[in-house]
Amino acid sequence: MNPLLPGGLALSGLEEQLLPPGTKGLALVEPLRQGALGVQGWNVLHGDTGYPVAVLKLSALRHNLAWMRDFCARHQVLLAPHGKTTMCPQLFGAQLAHGAWAITLATSVQVQVAHRFGVRRVILANELVAPGDMRAVLHLLREDPDFECFVLADSLAGVARLAEQAGAAGLARRLPVLVELGLDGKRAGCRTTDQALTVARAVERAPGLVLAGFEGYEGLLVSEDRDADLRAVAGFVAQLGALVREADDEGLFGAAEILLTAGGSAYFDLVARGCADLPALSRPLRAVLRSGSYISSDHGMYLEALAELDAREGSEPQSGLRPALELWSVVLSRPEPGLAILSLGKRDASHDAGLPIPLYRHGPGPGTPQALPDGCAIVKMNDQHAYLALPEGPIRALLAVGDLVGCGISHPCTTFDRWQLLLGVDDDYTVRTGLNTFF
Amino acid sequence: MNPLLPGGLALSGLEEQLLPPGTKGLALVEPLRQGALGVQGWNVLHGDTGYPVAVLKLSALRHNLAWMRDFCARHQVLLAPHGKTTMCPQLFGAQLAHGAWAITLATSVQVQVAHRFGVRRVILANELVAPGDMRAVLHLLREDPDFECFVLADSLAGVARLAEQAGAAGLARRLPVLVELGLDGKRAGCRTTDQALTVARAVERAPGLVLAGFEGYEGLLVSEDRDADLRAVAGFVAQLGALVREADDEGLFGAAEILLTAGGSAYFDLVARGCADLPALSRPLRAVLRSGSYISSDHGMYLEALAELDAREGSEPQSGLRPALELWSVVLSRPEPGLAILSLGKRDASHDAGLPIPLYRHGPGPGTPQALPDGCAIVKMNDQHAYLALPEGPIRALLAVGDLVGCGISHPCTTFDRWQLLLGVDDDYTVRTGLNTFF
Repeated sequence: MNPLLPGGLALSGLEEQLLPPGTKGLALVEPLRQGALGVQGWNVLHGDTGYPVAVLKLSALRHNLAWMRDFCARHQVLLAPHGKTTMCPQLFGAQLAHGAWAITLATSVQVQVAHRFGVRRVILANELVAPGDMRAVLHLLREDPDFECFVLADSLAGVARLAEQAGAAGLARRLPVLVELGLDGKRAGCRTTDQALTVARAVERAPGLVLAGFEGYEGLLVSEDRDADLRAVAGFVAQLGALVREADDEGLFGAAEILLTAGGSAYFDLVARGCADLPALSRPLRAVLRSGSYISSDHGMYLEALAELDAREGSEPQSGLRPALELWSVVLSRPEPGLAILSLGKRDASHDAGLPIPLYRHGPGPGTPQALPDGCAIVKMNDQHAYLALPEGPIRALLAVGDLVGCGISHPCTTFDRWQLLLGVDDDYTVRTGLNTFF
Repeated sequence: MNPLLPGGLALSGLEEQLLPPGTKGLALVEPLRQGALGVQGWNVLHGDTGYPVAVLKLSALRHNLAWMRDFCARHQVLLAPHGKTTMCPQLFGAQLAHGAWAITLATSVQVQVAHRFGVRRVILANELVAPGDMRAVLHLLREDPDFECFVLADSLAGVARLAEQAGAAGLARRLPVLVELGLDGKRAGCRTTDQALTVARAVERAPGLVLAGFEGYEGLLVSEDRDADLRAVAGFVAQLGALVREADDEGLFGAAEILLTAGGSAYFDLVARGCADLPALSRPLRAVLRSGSYISSDHGMYLEALAELDAREGSEPQSGLRPALELWSVVLSRPEPGLAILSLGKRDASHDAGLPIPLYRHGPGPGTPQALPDGCAIVKMNDQHAYLALPEGPIRALLAVGDLVGCGISHPCTTFDRWQLLLGVDDDYTVRTGLNTFF
């Protein structure tokens, strides 16, 4: 039990493990027990860590956990946050302690990791197809009667493969399947209600399977045109609702409840509201959101999307989800007046949805970091370097070799996966704890 | 000692470690000793692993290791391959066994990893600036008299910081420094010969430091205009040579030999040829290439660059470096006639220098993979999915849910870092060994 992030998963092994010299983000000269990270008196602003280093602001994490718990209670939806965002057992534990109903995952390997740390209910929000991957999941279900896993199918071929492997695994229970409804021109999923019903009927007929509900991912509709997005998301959620009703009218569902799950990290409020309009069915309908990035938010793509979500919710300004994830690096070189080279590269930071956003400058030591002026921007990254362009003005004289620079990122998923250890910090950047990832 | 990849580093701990269920690329249901990977009889084409899985073709690795050893002997240059490409101790060991003089690294953490596995000489081809990072490197030099590490500086501020920390560390020897010559508008490094000489003089005067040579990175000159590149690279290497000569005339060098190091993975032949033209100096000049990606090459950016290099070398066609790295994934969904969704995402594959290149299709089981027809292309990736576009033709009927697809990648550095374990395979994709990375 971590006093900083409440949660009850099996994390004692992580606290006991020895972090070797060569652990990214730390400047260890001898191995350190992870549980002792918080008593070293280290502060990121004082130059005590290695650079780059990935930090999570604990106050922002706690705020976001409580925010999402309250959001789901207000909208009467369940939460199965997408664990692929962080793959962090400490955060899974905190999410479950804040009422998450399950953890969502994207691959069989991720399901195994979650199970290893004690997660007891998961949604594998992906088609499960390869024999070894199926065997790995079915093994957990057979060996651990307390473990629940929902999987997706979007084709008759996929249903046949699942049925064959579930039969071969000799499960004492049926494998719960969610049929995926997709979107024309987008990713996986049936393209029409008729196709989805055809797949659902096949699930219903397969001896080792049970139709547990339907799944969709409206996050694929995010575009530059927000008004169009809002209409498209509302239409998609309505289509999912109609599909659930048709399947229920046909008597295809075989579990005590019907699951309807959607919800990325930008439009989950629209999903929650759409699910509130659904008619009564033959058994309880559970609407399950799957947002993963709410836990850390970001300074890029989600910051903007979540501000709009706040506006739709009618929230007080500044009350919404807060960016928790920052990367701190050091100025390695000032080769030209308008250029600083930072120790931060593609190996360390997201670069798929915008480059990192430079926020702060700090000359190592006591004090508070200073906001960087407008016009500072990371304009390029190599594997291990970032190019920070500096506008005309005092910053060009001020920013020196050895200064620390704090950056936000856009798209947390592709930053978390660059770090096997992130540091949980207080608001003054004192290091309090370590958070592990398993990618 | 690995019979598949000769090398003498301290790797027995890796062979003895238990790989847990949840190890990406494997479909384990119970822990497996890594050293037993090669006796399972697994074959990637038979569906025995998890998907996605990253494989290295052992025959291509062995070919590339020998190719580069012979290239360096022919050109009378030393090799310090950039270890940041792979961060793989097994490959470091094989590179050293094939005559590499040192391993190049980009960060202090990478230096610590290399040292942990027994590498005895490294070039930290980067400015070393943050106090903790400096202390970590200096600690190794103090505690291990057999360990050598060269570091970069490109500013008086950087030299002062190194001198201060080297003094505080109480080293029994001076820290060897290479002054970095950069390029206008590019990354770190002094922008002029005069600036570089100023920094070199500061190194020479600093009590705990010794000027060991100069460093540059011509890889930053790679552009779309190859003819312009060739002229620019030749000019840059000549500028480095002139700088070495001026510094030697001033008596700034303080070690038994003078190092001149450059050489990325596209134009290292030009560097080797440029270094052959250098005049005699007061002591032996050692030209050191740093190509990292030669070990795996790729099916993208380097495949093309290396074909041109082969032409410059006058090599026989097909005799050059071979792509060793492939990613195999499974078709999860065939939602539209021209679209297949693969279990391969940004978490698994490079996407910074082109998306993965689809090469083969295989229905799991015995037999040889079939080349995918022209027009197949990965047109988009999400975190955990790739969108494989299929041209009109038989492939649309042929490619089914559950089929395996083998892809090459462009830019090995940003694929290696997505895998903590890659599988070394024979040409028929039998799994023979595991290769670990430490990012």
